[in-house]
Amino acid sequence: MPLPIHANPVKQTGRTEYKQHFTRTINCFIYTFFLFLLPPIVSFAQTGKPAGKPNIVLIVADDHGTDALGCYGNRVIKTPHLDQLAAEGVRFTNAFCTAASCSPSRTVILSGMHNHANGMYGLEHSFHHFNSFASIESLPVLLAKAGYQTARVGKFHVGPEQVYAFQKVLSSGKANDPASLGRNPVQMAELSKSFITSINQPFFLYFATDDPHRSNKVLPNGEPDFNTGTAPNPFGNRQEGYAGIKEVSYQPAQVAVPSFLPDTRESRAELAQYYQAVSRIDQGVGKLIEYLKASGKYENTVIIYISDNGIAFPGAKTTLYDAGIKLPCIVRSPTTLKKGMVQQGMISWTDITPTILEFAGALPAQAAFHGRSFKKLLEEETVPGWDEVYASHSLHEITMYYPMRAVRTRKYKLIYNIAHQLPFPLALDLVKSFTWQGIMRSKTKQYGKRTIDAFLNRPKFELYDLEKDPDEIQNLANSPAHQDVFTQLLGKLKHFQQQTHDPWIHKWEYE
Amino acid sequence: MPLPIHANPVKQTGRTEYKQHFTRTINCFIYTFFLFLLPPIVSFAQTGKPAGKPNIVLIVADDHGTDALGCYGNRVIKTPHLDQLAAEGVRFTNAFCTAASCSPSRTVILSGMHNHANGMYGLEHSFHHFNSFASIESLPVLLAKAGYQTARVGKFHVGPEQVYAFQKVLSSGKANDPASLGRNPVQMAELSKSFITSINQPFFLYFATDDPHRSNKVLPNGEPDFNTGTAPNPFGNRQEGYAGIKEVSYQPAQVAVPSFLPDTRESRAELAQYYQAVSRIDQGVGKLIEYLKASGKYENTVIIYISDNGIAFPGAKTTLYDAGIKLPCIVRSPTTLKKGMVQQGMISWTDITPTILEFAGALPAQAAFHGRSFKKLLEEETVPGWDEVYASHSLHEITMYYPMRAVRTRKYKLIYNIAHQLPFPLALDLVKSFTWQGIMRSKTKQYGKRTIDAFLNRPKFELYDLEKDPDEIQNLANSPAHQDVFTQLLGKLKHFQQQTHDPWIHKWEYE
Repeated sequence: MPLPIHANPVKQTGRTEYKQHFTRTINCFIYTFFLFLLPPIVSFAQTGKPAGKPNIVLIVADDHGTDALGCYGNRVIKTPHLDQLAAEGVRFTNAFCTAASCSPSRTVILSGMHNHANGMYGLEHSFHHFNSFASIESLPVLLAKAGYQTARVGKFHVGPEQVYAFQKVLSSGKANDPASLGRNPVQMAELSKSFITSINQPFFLYFATDDPHRSNKVLPNGEPDFNTGTAPNPFGNRQEGYAGIKEVSYQPAQVAVPSFLPDTRESRAELAQYYQAVSRIDQGVGKLIEYLKASGKYENTVIIYISDNGIAFPGAKTTLYDAGIKLPCIVRSPTTLKKGMVQQGMISWTDITPTILEFAGALPAQAAFHGRSFKKLLEEETVPGWDEVYASHSLHEITMYYPMRAVRTRKYKLIYNIAHQLPFPLALDLVKSFTWQGIMRSKTKQYGKRTIDAFLNRPKFELYDLEKDPDEIQNLANSPAHQDVFTQLLGKLKHFQQQTHDPWIHKWEYE
Repeated sequence: MPLPIHANPVKQTGRTEYKQHFTRTINCFIYTFFLFLLPPIVSFAQTGKPAGKPNIVLIVADDHGTDALGCYGNRVIKTPHLDQLAAEGVRFTNAFCTAASCSPSRTVILSGMHNHANGMYGLEHSFHHFNSFASIESLPVLLAKAGYQTARVGKFHVGPEQVYAFQKVLSSGKANDPASLGRNPVQMAELSKSFITSINQPFFLYFATDDPHRSNKVLPNGEPDFNTGTAPNPFGNRQEGYAGIKEVSYQPAQVAVPSFLPDTRESRAELAQYYQAVSRIDQGVGKLIEYLKASGKYENTVIIYISDNGIAFPGAKTTLYDAGIKLPCIVRSPTTLKKGMVQQGMISWTDITPTILEFAGALPAQAAFHGRSFKKLLEEETVPGWDEVYASHSLHEITMYYPMRAVRTRKYKLIYNIAHQLPFPLALDLVKSFTWQGIMRSKTKQYGKRTIDAFLNRPKFELYDLEKDPDEIQNLANSPAHQDVFTQLLGKLKHFQQQTHDPWIHKWEYE
């Protein structure tokens, strides 16, 4: 199995060229047919020209796991618009971020490179102060060069600004800042409307919500305060609601507690709040699609819905366990013939940029991307060669140094905890969470299916058989029966580090 | 004893005003007297006006300890010009950097703030990629606002450029880059000559050598290679020499091995090379002073000679042991009456910026500096209130996370190793050094006066009685007889972290 980083996107394009041409032709017919159904207000100039170059809408939620989506099997949560998007498009069941930390993950999405190679080793805001290298050519910059009009709305949380440059900034505001409007995805859609409607060239809209991130107060010194005392974190929910949003509330008794979480009063209370925030996103996506349809541009628009990392509970976010990195990915593409396809190919967020660039006809021949385009996976159900992904986390907050590297195949995951001597650091929003504090008060030794000790104190290597042990509890790194698998995966990890110019590679040679 | 961060520079100025006025007046007389001795080419416009505002020359060497200077007691090394500077000025015997790492230390020098508060948590170059916050107002920027002409020559290694903005860049080049000319301090002086001579306003010259840093080859991937195999590192020395430099070479048998180092063939061979590089600096300083004198501006120029951190051997650089942080500091000031004064007051590099700003009459009333002006210490031998310093190191290379905080009084030092669970990380230039590799080959368990194990594996707290144990070998943190001292110093450290907005403060509350 070749490493994704070795897969040559140029060759891929070569192999898929016929298919691509065919699906484009078919799409053109469908498209022309739809044109006649549209109201006359939609002019040819607005819709006809860019048929070869589709519009791109990339929706990135904040801390949204697969656990809280109807189309991923949750029967309680109300996400009708996202479910509909999946019904019309492709739903990935093996999609992974490569770092379960906001800024690093977002730079991977927007650069096609692991964060250890793009410079964003941790969070961008406040004193954490990480930034990508000035030399990085990001997705919006490459799309602008390819003739796209680019705009962003909502959360940004990457930097520097000139590297991740969008031509239009429809809302400003820092991470989790009311000015970003990220808590009101319907208002984000409203702000996007005139951008979508008015332009006559293909566009790239980066639509990033603050939902369903935990919310916080701000201390006098400007630092966030996530302490909610004896109440659950509200996840952005508020008494007065948000303009244009019909809040959907949930009862703690209703929620489905993910298997990694303890089933407690506190976790259920927080999951109910989290669900409500997810339902806000769903309404924003619904509104955005409504405007896309009204503008006549929906059919020629690729819509991608993903999240930066898993849910904001200890055990998911900031870890490389599946709860932290296995994420929703729903893609609606003009090139997909089989609507409602479920795609089991394993993809990672390093693939997002190459995929979008291929749609834009702007995939460079010699790109430094660590991922490759998965466009073909939107067109065919079974495509060989998509059976492993890599992950790389270094820091989250500046004080949370805990570099980990992981390879995940369909059956196994190997995690290399480079600073395993340290206790696993807990992020401010997670350590202060009602859920974690409840566990601390209870004096239990267990956190979900793990012991607290196992969660906080990790060995150098963790090897899990995901088929037999999807919760990643039974470490097989020292199991004699698994030494061949261990050695093989370790070789892959080292190779991955070499090929992606990982600064931490020297730890194999000296500390 | 108040913390330096509490000392109010405004009040200080108030107390010293009379003295200051008096010495200025005296100085004015001396100055006028000298004017008549100068060749007629020196016009009044060039020298007369700025009498109230002296020129400032800040010389920063790279990895130069007190061990290799004639005026600090080394009888072998030839540093006649630096010794002469000390003879005409003030030599500090208790001067400390606050982080023994190049970029962090240089930002402390140029911002007056600990690196944990200015954002430069580690090295600036290559993938390490640390940078100060855009909000920092640095020394050259404040001096430019105060009417100074600012220029830099030689090594820079801080960032971003706009924060540490100099009006003139006399030589460019990255860290340890031949283009920086940092290996040829005489050429740096030549480049500075026209700047010094031509301007009619007070100037600030930042003169930073690459000497006596270890030298390296560059690998095809652009990374530095410090491996010298069976030869000592040349410390920039080369067969063909440097234009204008009379190389002074030393025999390994001659050198004085500092007490923290093992006395081996390898360490002696490297110390001899290091001495040679120091003698290059000395010639550059000599040439610079020659040009200052020729321009007639010497008398009204404050010259400060310091180093960023201790020598580039394991045990000094990147540690908070005295070999890493106790450094040369020689100041020649127009306000010093007693030439050749030896000043025992304890100062740190957080004090450099406030001191220079006081000389420039530009010390802000409400500054965020963590240090305070030591101008008075240049005028009086005994000044109360200079009896402790603080140090803060977080990373060096991006992979070398090892945050330490320390308080050092005249008698004691307490070091708090925040990530004590990790082995102490060795920098690329140190781990590959002939000295360290020799120790590794020898299979000895000892490195100088420490065991290798004690050097690499450190406890959470280290408390040393520096009077009885200047080599910091006997850790008293758990000594029952020292619990009062320990508790008192720990309280100081926490207070220091609070007052200087240390992001790592939360480690006291939760990991």
